[in-house]
Amino acid sequence: MVTPRGRRPGKRDTRAEILDAARQAFRAEGYDRATIRSVARRAAVDPSLVHHYFGDKAGLFVAAMDLARDPRQVAEQLSREGGPKGVGLVLAFLAIWEGPRSTGEPGSAFVAMVQAASTAPEVATALREFLSERVWRPEGGEPAWAPALVSSQLAGIGWARYIMRVEPIASATPEEVAAFVGPTIDRYIAGAVPDDGMQTSE
Amino acid sequence: MVTPRGRRPGKRDTRAEILDAARQAFRAEGYDRATIRSVARRAAVDPSLVHHYFGDKAGLFVAAMDLARDPRQVAEQLSREGGPKGVGLVLAFLAIWEGPRSTGEPGSAFVAMVQAASTAPEVATALREFLSERVWRPEGGEPAWAPALVSSQLAGIGWARYIMRVEPIASATPEEVAAFVGPTIDRYIAGAVPDDGMQTSE
Repeated sequence: MVTPRGRRPGKRDTRAEILDAARQAFRAEGYDRATIRSVARRAAVDPSLVHHYFGDKAGLFVAAMDLARDPRQVAEQLSREGGPKGVGLVLAFLAIWEGPRSTGEPGSAFVAMVQAASTAPEVATALREFLSERVWRPEGGEPAWAPALVSSQLAGIGWARYIMRVEPIASATPEEVAAFVGPTIDRYIAGAVPDDGMQTSE
Repeated sequence: MVTPRGRRPGKRDTRAEILDAARQAFRAEGYDRATIRSVARRAAVDPSLVHHYFGDKAGLFVAAMDLARDPRQVAEQLSREGGPKGVGLVLAFLAIWEGPRSTGEPGSAFVAMVQAASTAPEVATALREFLSERVWRPEGGEPAWAPALVSSQLAGIGWARYIMRVEPIASATPEEVAAFVGPTIDRYIAGAVPDDGMQTSE
């Protein structure tokens, strides 16, 4: 859909205000208890307007996460200054949750995302579709396993750092975490090959 | 604590019945809504008995997860037949959630764990203490980063397979997942060294 020119600023503000209200509602009430209705009440708009902009609660949640920045773009920017892509991707991932543009406590948006996705399968589906369409579109040469493996290791770092608070991952600097995990990401991106030294029990 | 000999079988049954009731309650009501009281009601015992055996709700939850099997022991058993340790550890991790001893849908206990840990910080704390005391006690030569990095990658696989259902991880056999991820685990266990080819932006 093409964004119409000359749209009144007032309209854009309403959308932003609904997203602000949604972030507040999901943080205060949790995904399960927050409703389109409670978000509309906080934003002082009609619930039908929330439906109009965002569809259902899962769509509203994904929009409120503000994941629109492309981590891969950030990673490519970072690696332009030299250094491997994996390190840049880890730094970009951590910056989403604790960088200057993140709101609330460091990692709190990650915790909210994990809570919502584990509570409501439709949030997991909406997130998966969002990520595969917008963040990591499959490219020609990329092996099918790469996006799944990379996202598993990145999510695992978020789990260890923000939810389980496992040391030393919890207190390390983003640069330290990236130095340890970056090579794994590079290996997955290059096309992880299963270890053929493995003996299967056939 | 030493288990007293000659304890009446009836006592052990009560404990097991409470755990069964807890698993049912957490599955049906979710961690947040289940209470010591609702578990006691399901088990037809007094709430004080639940407190007596398991302390608080977080303690009851961790006990109900039945994580008492040591994944590292399983991994060592598996690698006795040849094959690298990392592959065995991934297979042991997946067997906890979808093996013959797991109950409910494959992965449902993992989803419940993630939901509880992301909703209630005290569950994350109880799990972390359980894992560091019982599953992966630090040993002499092991680098401090290894347990944290290994658990981050394993948890990330659970996230991708059971919650996000990212393909091909979601539908692959445990052996396929282990073949891709095992080498990463081996690298972390061997003592991941940060990539010194990295250029930091100093």
